[in-house]
Amino acid sequence: MRIVVDVMGGDHGPGVVVSGVAQALATLRHIEGVYLVGQREAIEAGLRDIGCRDSRVEIVHASEVLSMEDKPVVGLRKKKDCSILRAVDLVKEGKAEALVSPGNTGGVVAASTIRMRPLEGVDRPGIAVVMPAPENEFVLLDAGANVECRPIHLAQYAIMGSLYSERVLGYQRPRVGILSNGTEDIKGNELTLGAFRLCRKLDLNFIGNVEGHDLFSNRVDVVVCDGFVGNVVLKTCESLAKGVFQWLKRELTATPVRKAGAWLARGAFRSLKTRLDADARGGAPLLGLNGAVTIAHGSARERAICNAVRITTEAVQHELNRHICDAVARAAKALESEPAGSPVP
Amino acid sequence: MRIVVDVMGGDHGPGVVVSGVAQALATLRHIEGVYLVGQREAIEAGLRDIGCRDSRVEIVHASEVLSMEDKPVVGLRKKKDCSILRAVDLVKEGKAEALVSPGNTGGVVAASTIRMRPLEGVDRPGIAVVMPAPENEFVLLDAGANVECRPIHLAQYAIMGSLYSERVLGYQRPRVGILSNGTEDIKGNELTLGAFRLCRKLDLNFIGNVEGHDLFSNRVDVVVCDGFVGNVVLKTCESLAKGVFQWLKRELTATPVRKAGAWLARGAFRSLKTRLDADARGGAPLLGLNGAVTIAHGSARERAICNAVRITTEAVQHELNRHICDAVARAAKALESEPAGSPVP
Repeated sequence: MRIVVDVMGGDHGPGVVVSGVAQALATLRHIEGVYLVGQREAIEAGLRDIGCRDSRVEIVHASEVLSMEDKPVVGLRKKKDCSILRAVDLVKEGKAEALVSPGNTGGVVAASTIRMRPLEGVDRPGIAVVMPAPENEFVLLDAGANVECRPIHLAQYAIMGSLYSERVLGYQRPRVGILSNGTEDIKGNELTLGAFRLCRKLDLNFIGNVEGHDLFSNRVDVVVCDGFVGNVVLKTCESLAKGVFQWLKRELTATPVRKAGAWLARGAFRSLKTRLDADARGGAPLLGLNGAVTIAHGSARERAICNAVRITTEAVQHELNRHICDAVARAAKALESEPAGSPVP
Repeated sequence: MRIVVDVMGGDHGPGVVVSGVAQALATLRHIEGVYLVGQREAIEAGLRDIGCRDSRVEIVHASEVLSMEDKPVVGLRKKKDCSILRAVDLVKEGKAEALVSPGNTGGVVAASTIRMRPLEGVDRPGIAVVMPAPENEFVLLDAGANVECRPIHLAQYAIMGSLYSERVLGYQRPRVGILSNGTEDIKGNELTLGAFRLCRKLDLNFIGNVEGHDLFSNRVDVVVCDGFVGNVVLKTCESLAKGVFQWLKRELTATPVRKAGAWLARGAFRSLKTRLDADARGGAPLLGLNGAVTIAHGSARERAICNAVRITTEAVQHELNRHICDAVARAAKALESEPAGSPVP
């Protein structure tokens, strides 16, 4: 398979991204070619720095960068020769099957949606974040691509999230739930109540509404919500986890005895840190597009980029998009009698 | 001041609630009277069990209970003599100024809104939860009273939350933010964008949009959102915190050396547990009603009930409602030119 990496736009500059891609190439022999898109001199310097002469690498020059500060749609209109647009076009033109970008999330969503187009039958792409929990990993989507959703969008997220959990993460009959303000069927807002009615008719292991309490207690494998709620939940979890560890560290270093205890137990903290390590995935797939797109963390360093490349190739290897197309077509049949676009349940 | 406690509806039965109230009476001498509302025999038995003969206690019999399983509005219509309605009526009739109930949250919200009515100028009451963070405590509202909000509701939550933070928690010029999917002014959905425009015109220390990342990093003291989002955020945080400690415990008990380390450092875990202790507040105020209402946790035991009674009396002592009325009236003037009811920004 051939992939494209937008090396610009990350927080740490193109050198780090180039180096991360080289790491991925070293282990992923099934990658036949990589287009590195961005400013040619910066990419060449990056390759030189790490002594990379992999013949699979091809540089595609782009003179502009969509920065984190650019407003996505306005920025893309102004910067016609920015790296993310060039990168997206390579997939659109069939020169590559997959794309990784650590850039402006809104920019990646907008550029890939406009140029690559959603898969046949999919209305809106969604960002699927894999969240670690004590007993399982759950997929949360949409984590921010689509802030104003209609029920049919949530139903399609349910389908795509379920397939990602099953095909890529290896869960059998993943439990799919709609995130709501209570588990009872009547709980929810107009949007979730409408989505609930649609999801019940789909060929999913749909367990109904789930609430915040269910997320980290192994009751659900795919958590469906609109991009506003998903983004708030994702960032709140990141903030709380960081806060708890910061708190714990302060408490554990408050006295010499506690320090000694923490040192003896250091393996436990390390092990937990490993499980919660965001770099282990390095990014989140943007599901529902004609191509496999992964949005790497803006703050991604080498290892995170390397892992983002890996998870992107996994989506291609498992033919995720073919499965999504089949499932969405089946769903459209199942929902034929439904006023699917209407927000009213 | 005189208060009412609905002793029915909690998970642990009326005895636990009665005992918690007795604890509160022992320390809060400024409480002049307490109505205990519920099944007379159960309350009498509860008082006998703990040997309470406090002359401030008066029993008000109610033959029915709105259970956790009852649908709020339907349940209240069927069970005319349920304890929560009797309790609410005592406040409505001016016999008491404050109410504590560990019962069905939706039931408490519905009963008190219908009978006690919102404060002059307030459209919807909101549940204000005080969340502990490493460097501060922040107020999150609405945590579930009002699932379908309009911008003016969020603006009123901003006012009420700010006053709660200032008057009751003691924060000076508390930082008020609207929870959104990014901190930029343009981020948000129709609802939050509309609320943003209103809040800018109010006499608040309004810091604009906040995102999940800001919650536990001392950047905001009052987090405003609709009841759907607030409920999801609250429960997700509870679930994640529980998950992290469960994880940590498993790791810390995995080897004898780690166990020894954890034992040495036990003070750190205890101290953190104390800070995260939900029973320290015991419940959440339902702001914006003609009376001080606190919804105690359904799972509240004696200490939680005792603390819920205490925080209720604090709201009365600080004349929170008078301040809310004044501020809402001033806000109405400031927003006179706004189409405040419209969801479009």
